[in-house]
Formats: sequence, C-alpha cells, structure tokens
Amino acid sequence: MIKFSVQKNDILDALTTTAKAASTKSVISALEGIHLSLTGNQLTVTGYDLELGIKSTIDVEGESDGVLVLNSRLICDIVRKMPSGVIRFDEYEPLKLNLMCEDITYSIMGINSEEYPVLPELSRGESFEISEPLLKSVIGQTLYAVATIDTKPVLMGSKFEIKNNELNVISVDGIRIAIRKESLLHEDFDFVVPAKTLSELLRLLSDDESKIATVSVDRNQGIFSIDKYTVFSRLLEGDFFNYTKIIGMPSNIEAVVNVRELMECVDRTLLLLNDKIKSPVDFTFSDNTLRVFCETAIGKLDQKIKCDYSGEEFRISFNSRYILDALKNTYCDKVKFLFVQNTALKIVPLEGDSFTFIVSPVRRR
Amino acid sequence: MIKFSVQKNDILDALTTTAKAASTKSVISALEGIHLSLTGNQLTVTGYDLELGIKSTIDVEGESDGVLVLNSRLICDIVRKMPSGVIRFDEYEPLKLNLMCEDITYSIMGINSEEYPVLPELSRGESFEISEPLLKSVIGQTLYAVATIDTKPVLMGSKFEIKNNELNVISVDGIRIAIRKESLLHEDFDFVVPAKTLSELLRLLSDDESKIATVSVDRNQGIFSIDKYTVFSRLLEGDFFNYTKIIGMPSNIEAVVNVRELMECVDRTLLLLNDKIKSPVDFTFSDNTLRVFCETAIGKLDQKIKCDYSGEEFRISFNSRYILDALKNTYCDKVKFLFVQNTALKIVPLEGDSFTFIVSPVRRR
Repeated sequence: MIKFSVQKNDILDALTTTAKAASTKSVISALEGIHLSLTGNQLTVTGYDLELGIKSTIDVEGESDGVLVLNSRLICDIVRKMPSGVIRFDEYEPLKLNLMCEDITYSIMGINSEEYPVLPELSRGESFEISEPLLKSVIGQTLYAVATIDTKPVLMGSKFEIKNNELNVISVDGIRIAIRKESLLHEDFDFVVPAKTLSELLRLLSDDESKIATVSVDRNQGIFSIDKYTVFSRLLEGDFFNYTKIIGMPSNIEAVVNVRELMECVDRTLLLLNDKIKSPVDFTFSDNTLRVFCETAIGKLDQKIKCDYSGEEFRISFNSRYILDALKNTYCDKVKFLFVQNTALKIVPLEGDSFTFIVSPVRRR
Repeated sequence: MIKFSVQKNDILDALTTTAKAASTKSVISALEGIHLSLTGNQLTVTGYDLELGIKSTIDVEGESDGVLVLNSRLICDIVRKMPSGVIRFDEYEPLKLNLMCEDITYSIMGINSEEYPVLPELSRGESFEISEPLLKSVIGQTLYAVATIDTKPVLMGSKFEIKNNELNVISVDGIRIAIRKESLLHEDFDFVVPAKTLSELLRLLSDDESKIATVSVDRNQGIFSIDKYTVFSRLLEGDFFNYTKIIGMPSNIEAVVNVRELMECVDRTLLLLNDKIKSPVDFTFSDNTLRVFCETAIGKLDQKIKCDYSGEEFRISFNSRYILDALKNTYCDKVKFLFVQNTALKIVPLEGDSFTFIVSPVRRR
C-alpha cells in the first residue's frame, strides 16, 4: 500500500498538469483518475484517456511502494486547499487513503489500478530534437486552422512534415490553410498530431531557448518529452490535404497591410455579427487605401486604412473571424496580401517565408 | 435630432454604468436601451428597467439638442471598440445615427424615445447623508443574507431602519440574519431596498471617506445620489421580519475563534459536497479546541483548530456555506461564537457590536 510524503507545490504541479490528460467523463472510472506509482523515492504521476497521456516523475519521501488511482478532480482540489508544506499520503487499508497536512486529515477512496490502461511504449521509430520556444511557435501559428468537425478526422490535427531538411507544420479546415516552415536537419518523415494534444503541448512548452524538447514517433504514437513531462499521443491517420499545389499558385494582385490596424478594424465588424446574423467583411483596395466595410441588420461599419497598393480598384469579401485568426498569428507588423485571381487570399509576412496563410473568399450575391 | 461630440472615455464610463440598469431582455425594446438626452452641452445618460434606474450627466460638445434611445449592449460595445479620442454622435435622419471617430463610421438604428418610461420624481420625503465607504460597508456586510426565493418578496431586500439615532441594516432569509449597526443622526424611519439595487450601489460606492452619498426616500421609491450618478430604485413593501426578539436571546455557551483559520477549514469541506451530495459541517468544542468534521459519500475531512473555549464538550452542525458567508463578512480577526441553547449560533466581533450574524443549526439524525 502506497505511503509517502511530499511538498504540496511539487505534487500539485504534477497533479494539475497530468490531470489535463485524464478523462473528465468516462464509464471507466479509472480513466477519470490520476495514476500514482511509487518506487523508492520516485513517484510517477500519470493522466491518460487512451488518446492523450501526460506523465511526470517527482522526488518524494517514500515509505512504502505501491500503486493507486485517485479521482483527478478531487485529488487536485484537495491538494490545492491544503496549507503549504508537507502532505503525507497514507493508504491505510487497500484503496483507503488518508491525506494529512498539519492538523488536517482528508480521507478518500482510491480507484483500483487494475482498471487503469497501460501507456504505449515506443519500440523504434523516428525522433528529433527541437527547442521548446520553436516547437511552441510552430504549433501556435497553425493550431487555430485545424478542422473542428470530423468529416475527415485526419484534418482535426496538424501535420508535421520533414522534407529536404525542413519542418513544415500544416493545418487545414477546408476554407483555410496555415503553414509554418522551419529548417530542421533530419530524414524525411511525417505524422499528424491531434489538436487536443497540440493545445496541451502549447501549455507545457516554455519560452526558454535553452530547453530542448524531443519528439519521437512510432507508427500511430507520438511521444513528446518536455522538461519534466512526457506527453503521449495517439496520432491521426489518413490522407492529409495536399497543399503544395495551392501554395504554388501565382498571385496577380499584391498589397501590403499594417497588421494591428487591420486587426482592430476587422474586429469592429464582429459587433454587427452574431450566431444568427452573418455577413462577410468586404475589402476594397484602391490607390493606397483599403476600405473595410460590413453591413448587417444590426448596422454597418465603414472604415478606411492606409495600405501599399497601386493597382486597379479591387473588391473581395471574407469571413471576419478567419482573417482575424490569421492576422493574430502572423507575429509581424506588416504582411503581404497576395490574391490568386478571385480564388484565394494568401497572407505572408512582408519579409521571409516562414509563415503562409491561405483563405478562400466569400462569394457575394 | 441629437448631435454632439464627446471624449470616448467620458461617454464609455456613463454608458457602461447606466447599462447595468437597462433590461437585458424585454418585450419593450426601449427598456433594453440607454436613453440619451442633450440640452446644450449637457448630455444625460439613463438606463431604467422600471425597477432600477441609473442616471448620469456629462459634459459634451453639443451641436443639436435631442433625445434618442440606443440598444445598450450594442452602443457600449461600439464605443468600447472605438480608438481613444473624440467620438461624434450624429443623428442624420430620425432614428438613424452615425458614430464617427477618425476614419471609422458605424451606422446604427436608434429606438423611438416615446416608448421610454419616465423616471420617478420625489415630491417630499425623508433623506439623509452618509459617507460612501460607510454605506458600502453596511450594504456589503448584510447583502449575502438576503432571501433569494420570493415566498415573501419583502425579504428579497435589506431593511434600512433608523431608530434612536442608529442605522440598522438587516437581511434575513429564514435560516440566517445579518445585521449591521451604525450611529446616524436622523428621525426614525425605515425602508427596504431590493438586493439588485444594493449590488449596483456596491459597485458605484467608493472607499473615499470624503465622498458623501445622499439617500432619499418617498413612499415606494428610493433615490441614491452617489458622486456623478443617481440611482433610482423601487422599494419593497410588506412586513419585514422582526429580529429584535431573537437578537436579544441570552447565550449560554461562548467561544472565541480565529476567523481566517476557521474559514479555510470550513472551505475544505466544500470539496466533499456538491449539488446532489449535501452534509452539514460538525463543530465540536472541547477544551480550547474546535474540531471541524464533515463526511459524505465522497470522503471525509477531520481538522482541529485552537479556540478559546472552556466549557463542557459541545457539538453542533451547520450548513458550510452559511458559516463561510458570515465569516467572510465579519472583517475582523477574531469573533465570538455565542450559542443560544441548541437553537441558534450568534457570531459577533470580539470587540464592539456593529455586526451580528445569527444562523440556525442543522438538526442531525
């Protein structure tokens, strides 16, 4: 029966992070649990819902080795409300746990660990290293464009594609594509990571350039080692969208736009829209001016901003939210708008080619 | 047709504050609106849902006097998303308004002001002055104990009672009573203010001792003048609970408890409770010790804290949330627990008698 003492903050950190991978609602109560496993002074804490798993090993003062599963919400809340200091976990009868801190004793029931699933193991496969901030940025700049409805399940994740010593991360939902490119020395291979895993990775990844994450892939499993955490994820399978053709299409119209100005401007159109009232935002480019216009039953917005454009007057309409999502994630001051006839808008940074966003226009009456 | 220019921050403040009193959902669309009325350079901004009204007058640059009602949510959002600087309101056709700031123009429809209700006026009546922080504290220390179900509508507000140059503010919901006492030189009178009005007053009242609020009451209307805002409220009518008898009952058991310690302790019992699983918290007083215990299907909590108590061992049970509400609002380090046999717990500050809270125990099986 498991018995150990641990600093509140150490275990709280491990519990709340691994709890992100525990099921919130499952018929198997063990899947709603956090798995604790003690060997000597090493406590391994795991959350796993069969698709996503997060594991962490922390130092504790071990007293008696053992394994126990606890309801994730309850154990996180209890530890959070304990005073700071040492908490003692004492399984005094099988599946009966006392949590003690100072003069406080909580008594709760554990869950049989035999029902808990086994985490996948990698036998062989591919792996590469990447700095944490870089992995964070390639995920963040593409995640929002992942498909949210599962007409094609493989599109509910981002594709990581290593080709010619370049890493491309691609998300596509049928209307838009977001692509982030970085150089990475490795043989060619690719895999698709579900959006839920990517969201959790974003939270765990730091901005510290000296920290390196390891990404390992074996058939349908991916393992991400990030600092003191290991994230296990099922990978998505199927034919991903072939984006190379559309990205290569030549543009015939080009404008340069200030990102912050246009974001504020498009954001203002949202007040005129709601779940029932939809209307695209119209962009009219003319002599160094971009006129942004939106009209619905609620009212209308008419605004002009400066832009670098010198062609003929040209009008095109888009879904406001798609444009906002892309602009928010360009992380630069100015972007180029490249129009591929009337079939697509390509947004790229003014300098460099690390980021590309492509969106289809809304056809007007 | 109304036309004026105004600093964004001035009008945003007036709009968002008065919008608190506008209906969020009404069959009369004017009640979901903010009423604007311009005379010269004075703009009066009003929200009023027939029960609660908030009015503010601000300086603007007037161009053409007029009256217009605008949907409160929409106008607040539009002004919030405008750049800081001067916004021009221009009713260019009846009920058609342009809002202009720099190169941005929003066009929205107004609502006919003829449908807007007239605010009540006081003819004569009682009135008194009170510092803003004092009014804030008498409301805050009692508001949580107001009844939330309207079996007796008059209990859905706090009673303000001036008697023998003392102001008593009383809330009662059938299980508990909260009373706050302050000296106030005025003839005897009383009135009951609805909880919704009190919540809005709490937001508007400052902690600045030099600011004085004026409270005026005439039959079923109360008017609170607070800084640049005037709050109008319907008052509640009916027989309020007579608390004098219960407050005067002698106590036979007494203990002194540390507020913060007991709060943290009772707060820990909440983890074992939910909407379906209810259980009271047990207090057992013995030789200078208070044992706090709670057990449910989820688990149990057992905790001891020190307290000043020297009588025989004594056990009593309460609803955790009621005890927490009271402790949070005592605003002192230590309180006296006075037990009136087994019929009630009275909580009072260790020193002084400005605050009294009385709660019925939960009878155990």
